[in-house]
Amino acid sequence: MNAAADSGPLAGLRVIDLGQVYLGPYCGLMFALMGAEVIKVEPPGGDSIRGIAGGRENPAAMMLNSSKQSVTLDLGSKDGRTALLALADTADVLIENFRPGTMEKLGLGRETLCARNPRLVMGSGKGYAEDSAFRDAAAMDFPIQALSGLMSVTGFADGPPVKCGAAITDFLGGIHLFGGIMAALHVRGTTGRGDFVQIAMQDVAHHALASNISSFLLAPDGFTDRAGNGQAVLKVAPYDLFPARDGQVAIMCLNDRHWQQLTRAMGRRDLADDPELAEGPARCARRAEVDGWVSEWTSCHTRDDIFAALSAAHVPGAPVRTIGEVVSDEDMRARGMIRDLPHPELGTVPVPGLPIRFAGHAQAAPEPAPAAGADTARILTALNRGRPSAQSKDNN
Amino acid sequence: MNAAADSGPLAGLRVIDLGQVYLGPYCGLMFALMGAEVIKVEPPGGDSIRGIAGGRENPAAMMLNSSKQSVTLDLGSKDGRTALLALADTADVLIENFRPGTMEKLGLGRETLCARNPRLVMGSGKGYAEDSAFRDAAAMDFPIQALSGLMSVTGFADGPPVKCGAAITDFLGGIHLFGGIMAALHVRGTTGRGDFVQIAMQDVAHHALASNISSFLLAPDGFTDRAGNGQAVLKVAPYDLFPARDGQVAIMCLNDRHWQQLTRAMGRRDLADDPELAEGPARCARRAEVDGWVSEWTSCHTRDDIFAALSAAHVPGAPVRTIGEVVSDEDMRARGMIRDLPHPELGTVPVPGLPIRFAGHAQAAPEPAPAAGADTARILTALNRGRPSAQSKDNN
Repeated sequence: MNAAADSGPLAGLRVIDLGQVYLGPYCGLMFALMGAEVIKVEPPGGDSIRGIAGGRENPAAMMLNSSKQSVTLDLGSKDGRTALLALADTADVLIENFRPGTMEKLGLGRETLCARNPRLVMGSGKGYAEDSAFRDAAAMDFPIQALSGLMSVTGFADGPPVKCGAAITDFLGGIHLFGGIMAALHVRGTTGRGDFVQIAMQDVAHHALASNISSFLLAPDGFTDRAGNGQAVLKVAPYDLFPARDGQVAIMCLNDRHWQQLTRAMGRRDLADDPELAEGPARCARRAEVDGWVSEWTSCHTRDDIFAALSAAHVPGAPVRTIGEVVSDEDMRARGMIRDLPHPELGTVPVPGLPIRFAGHAQAAPEPAPAAGADTARILTALNRGRPSAQSKDNN
Repeated sequence: MNAAADSGPLAGLRVIDLGQVYLGPYCGLMFALMGAEVIKVEPPGGDSIRGIAGGRENPAAMMLNSSKQSVTLDLGSKDGRTALLALADTADVLIENFRPGTMEKLGLGRETLCARNPRLVMGSGKGYAEDSAFRDAAAMDFPIQALSGLMSVTGFADGPPVKCGAAITDFLGGIHLFGGIMAALHVRGTTGRGDFVQIAMQDVAHHALASNISSFLLAPDGFTDRAGNGQAVLKVAPYDLFPARDGQVAIMCLNDRHWQQLTRAMGRRDLADDPELAEGPARCARRAEVDGWVSEWTSCHTRDDIFAALSAAHVPGAPVRTIGEVVSDEDMRARGMIRDLPHPELGTVPVPGLPIRFAGHAQAAPEPAPAAGADTARILTALNRGRPSAQSKDNN
C-alpha cells in the first residue's frame, strides 16, 4: 500500500459528496485533502453556493471543493437517480446535508442506499436532529446561532446579542460529521458493515458552549449573558482588547503569574511589585486603573511589537487582524495552510490546506476545484463499464 | 465483537487523555462517549480547569470528562513519567494539548512514545503550528480569535471587534484533532503503524472563515469587516434580529422565495404581491421599511409563536435563547443531548451527550466524570501486573 501511503491517509476511499454550501462540502474537503477520491455531485446548475455572488463564481465554492471531482446529476429525474444509486454502490462514504426529508423523497434514503451497499457509511448533517422538536424548522447558521445560545453570549453587556461573524456552526457541524464517519469506518474495519451517521448543528453548537454553561451554573442569578471582550465570571484582569499604534491587541491575564510577566514586559516593575495588585480579584476591582496602565503601554507600540513582547513574556495575547490581513498572511502560505490556486474567472483563490498534519504523510497540495460537471462524462462512462465495486478495493 | 458493538463504535480502544481545559478533553470526550476506554491523566491537583472557579469544582470539568477514568501522575517526577510511559505502551491513542515543548521537556515527546509503541497514534493540539512564526506565543481561545480574524468579523459595523462568546476555537480544535486521530487509526488498520497527528487552533479557525474570506475577495475595497446581525456582502433583506413580545427572533430571507413565504406567514399578501419588493437588492435598498414591516409583525407575537410560523412557512429563523433557557431545554434532555448527572458538591450537572448518532449503535448514557485520581490505584496496579498490550487486544 505504498501508493496509498504517499497519497494521504484516506487514499483508497471513494466518497460521494452531495454536500451543499458549507457543512457537507467542508466534511468532503477533509476526505479530499486526505487523499480520498471525492466525487462532488451537484445539480445541473451547480451547488447553490457557486452562484450566490450574483452571477460571479463564488470564491467559497473554490475554497471548499478543491481536490474533488464534479459530476452534475438531476436527481429529480429517473436517470439522475439511477446514476446516483450506481455511484453510491461503488462508494465507501456518502455525505449529504440537504434539508430533512429530501433524500427520502428522492428515493435515496438510507434504507435504500444501505440495503444496496451494506458497506456504505452514510453521513447526514442537519440543522436540527431528526428527533428534535424543531426538526421541521428551516435551519442555517444564523438561526442555529440564535437558538443554541451562542448569540446570547456574544456582544457587549449593554448591547444586543450579535452573531459570531463566521458561519461557525456549519464548520463545527462539518468536522463533527467527518469524525463520526471515520468512527463508523473504524467499526467497518471489523464488522464489514457500514452505518448511518447523523449530526445536528444545534447539538454541536450547544456542546461548544460548555464554558458558558458552566459559568451560568456557578452563578445563575449573577450571570451576565454577554461580557464583550472580557471574562463573564472569572475574577481576572486585565482581559480585553487594548489600543496599539496601528490597531488593537487582545491581552489576557488568566492568572497572577501572567500579570507579573505582563508588567515586567511593560517595564512596570512598580506594578509587578505592588502587593495590592498581586491577585485577580483586587485587579478586577480596580479594572479601570489596571486597563489604563496597560493601554498606556500598548498605545505606544505597534501590534507586532506588542505581540513579540507578549510572546517573549509568555502572556497570552495577539493582534486583532482583519480579514484583509489574514488573506495576505505569508506565514500561512509558507506552511501550506493557504494555497493560491488559479481560477479562470477569479484569478487566484487562496484555498485552505489540510488543517491536520500527519507525520506519516506528506502534506498534499490541493488541486483546484472543478467546474460544475467537469467530470460527469468520464465518471459516468467508467461507471457504465462496470467499475470495480467498493468491496473489492477496500483496504479494511 | 458483539460486546464492542453494544458499547459504542470505539469500544476496544484505549486512549490516554493528557488533555487540559477544553481542547484536549473535548477530543477525549468523543472517544469516551463512543465507548473507548479513556484514561484522563492529571497532575496531582487535577486538571487546572477543575479549580478555576475559585475553590469550587468547575461544572465544565464534569461536562467534558464524563465516561472517563482519572489517574493522577506527577509528570515532573521519575515515577510519574515511568507510569505514563507504561500507560502509553498499552494505548492506541494519546492526546495532549500542553504548551509547545512540554512533552519533549518531560522526555515524553513523540519520538520516545512512538518508538516504544509503534502502533500508538499521538494527537497533539496547539494554538499555533510547530512551524508557525507564532509558535512561541502563549495561545488560548481569546488571542486565537483575535489573530485568526474571527473577532474582526464579529460585532457591529460602528462598534469594536468582539469575541465570539464561546471558546469556539478550542472546540473546533478538539473535534479536528479527533477526526485526524481517527484518520490515522484508519491507516493503522492497514499498515499496523501509528502516527503523530497535529492541529493548530489558528489554522482551524482560519478555515472556518471561508465565507468571510470569500466575501472579502469579491469586494476587497467595499468589504465591511463587521455586519452585526446582517449580511456583509449579499444583497438580501430582511436578515436581522427582530423584537418579539418576549425577546428577539432571528429571521433571514436568503432568497426571494423566503420573502414570499415570510410575508404570507405575516398575513401581508400586499407585500408578497408588491413587484417592487420582489427582489433582494430592491428590499435591501428599502431595508428600514422592510425591517419595519417585519418588526410590526414580530412584536405582536411570542418567540415560540413566531418560530412555529416561520417553521411552517419554511423561512429560516429561530428565537434568540439565553444560556439559562438552553440549560433548561427539555427537548435536548429527551434526545439525550443533555444528561443530568449527579455530582457530590454541585448537585446535578447537565453533561453533553454524544453529538454524533450512529444507526448501528445505541446512544450510550454518559457516566459521571471521576474525581481527580479516582482510578489511579486500580489502573496502576493492573499496569504493574502486566495488562495485555494494545497489540493483542486491537480490533484492526
